[in-house]
Amino acid sequence: MHQEYTAEILTIGNEILMGRTINTNATYIASRLTLLGFHVRRVTTIGDDVNEIANAVKEIVDRGPLILVTSGGLGPTYDDMTSEGIAKGLGLRLVMNEDALKELKEKYQSRGLPLTEERLKMALMPEGSKPIKNNVGIAPGIAISVKETEIVVTPGVPKEMESVLNFYLDNMLRNKPRVHFHEESFLVRGIMESEIAPFIRKVVKETGIYIKTHPKGHETNEPYLEIQFAWSGESKEEVEKKVREAVEKVKEEVIKRKGVLEQKP
Amino acid sequence: MHQEYTAEILTIGNEILMGRTINTNATYIASRLTLLGFHVRRVTTIGDDVNEIANAVKEIVDRGPLILVTSGGLGPTYDDMTSEGIAKGLGLRLVMNEDALKELKEKYQSRGLPLTEERLKMALMPEGSKPIKNNVGIAPGIAISVKETEIVVTPGVPKEMESVLNFYLDNMLRNKPRVHFHEESFLVRGIMESEIAPFIRKVVKETGIYIKTHPKGHETNEPYLEIQFAWSGESKEEVEKKVREAVEKVKEEVIKRKGVLEQKP
Repeated sequence: MHQEYTAEILTIGNEILMGRTINTNATYIASRLTLLGFHVRRVTTIGDDVNEIANAVKEIVDRGPLILVTSGGLGPTYDDMTSEGIAKGLGLRLVMNEDALKELKEKYQSRGLPLTEERLKMALMPEGSKPIKNNVGIAPGIAISVKETEIVVTPGVPKEMESVLNFYLDNMLRNKPRVHFHEESFLVRGIMESEIAPFIRKVVKETGIYIKTHPKGHETNEPYLEIQFAWSGESKEEVEKKVREAVEKVKEEVIKRKGVLEQKP
Repeated sequence: MHQEYTAEILTIGNEILMGRTINTNATYIASRLTLLGFHVRRVTTIGDDVNEIANAVKEIVDRGPLILVTSGGLGPTYDDMTSEGIAKGLGLRLVMNEDALKELKEKYQSRGLPLTEERLKMALMPEGSKPIKNNVGIAPGIAISVKETEIVVTPGVPKEMESVLNFYLDNMLRNKPRVHFHEESFLVRGIMESEIAPFIRKVVKETGIYIKTHPKGHETNEPYLEIQFAWSGESKEEVEKKVREAVEKVKEEVIKRKGVLEQKP
């Protein structure tokens, strides 16, 4: 993997920590970043608390990933405090962003709604931020560069998160990796994870390819595995060729060991 | 909330960081801990890498939660390195656990299968660990106390994680919180999150109750909210009464503002 294109994800929200909401936002963000060739190194989830947000952002920026995508805590309610937390963590002032304010004015006033304190809050951003267009909801996203890291702040409502993230990736991403990511997997019945493990380790050692066995059945009774292969690199053709060679090697071995390949559903 | 019963969750696996697997394990663990009265403060996900695991465990133990539940990386393959990573992070030796070894012998040898290096690996644990019964799969879980924190290590396969976690919670949990957690929520149409925000803030300030608005529609076009209330405390009756009072207060306000209450599906 191209370790230099590192990324981290920070999701913010008590509802995730309470086990009330499944963190599909993290999955979506991780998948988008991976497909662009980023190596996501860590996902952190914390609650709606200014100090927790400040600490987490500081820790992440100190680790220095190329990109940090956050999700959650951008709305108009008292517990939406991502902007404030990020500003605090980075030692930046929280200021009214004129471009964001203009957008909010258009969105609310066109509907005859007043700009209350809660609504204006969504235009408060850490000094030096650029708002990111939110085509689905109200709260704009935030882009801000700090040291090595480009921070991309998205709302927590999944459709809004996707809209803001995709606007950013399509229009604003600098240092865009030019790598291609390729992944394949196959299913096999009748092979135990512990039985194929030494062979997989050997192929990983020889090729450097990422291979992972996902047990889907029981280890000794009716073993059933998904074996996943992934790699990224600058040449699409080379990446695909390398992955396919590893797939074939492992397929041969499982057939030799009387494993039964199965079509994916 | 009873901040003293703090918990953290650490999930380990490249497949989560690649956005290939939705982290439902974290949700399950968070929900179980919350219902027992724990306050989950952070969920961290890292990849299958000894040093990443060691660093993350060290950071978490330094923050000193009462309990840390980990998931993933306990199996027989080359990329299952949770035991090793935890031992490294805590500065403990990785030793063959005799009880775990006995369990593995029973599970494999009863099926006429040899104890290979990959299989024995699942009985290697940080010095001072206690194995936790895995009634579903092979790899036993691990319980180990370090400083303020009880670390509970579970496999990544969801059914095995659940089996190990539940065995631990039912049979081995010391300092079990005696608090009750209660949560309620209702749905309302026609009220904007930004409109109700000042009132919610007031109720939170007055009662201390956790209240969160979850927007399910668009902020200004057809607004649709779920409003969630939660609290925990030592008396079940008191906790429920307090939550219900807050629910009634907010319901009255949304009706006054022409919001339409909706039955939950």
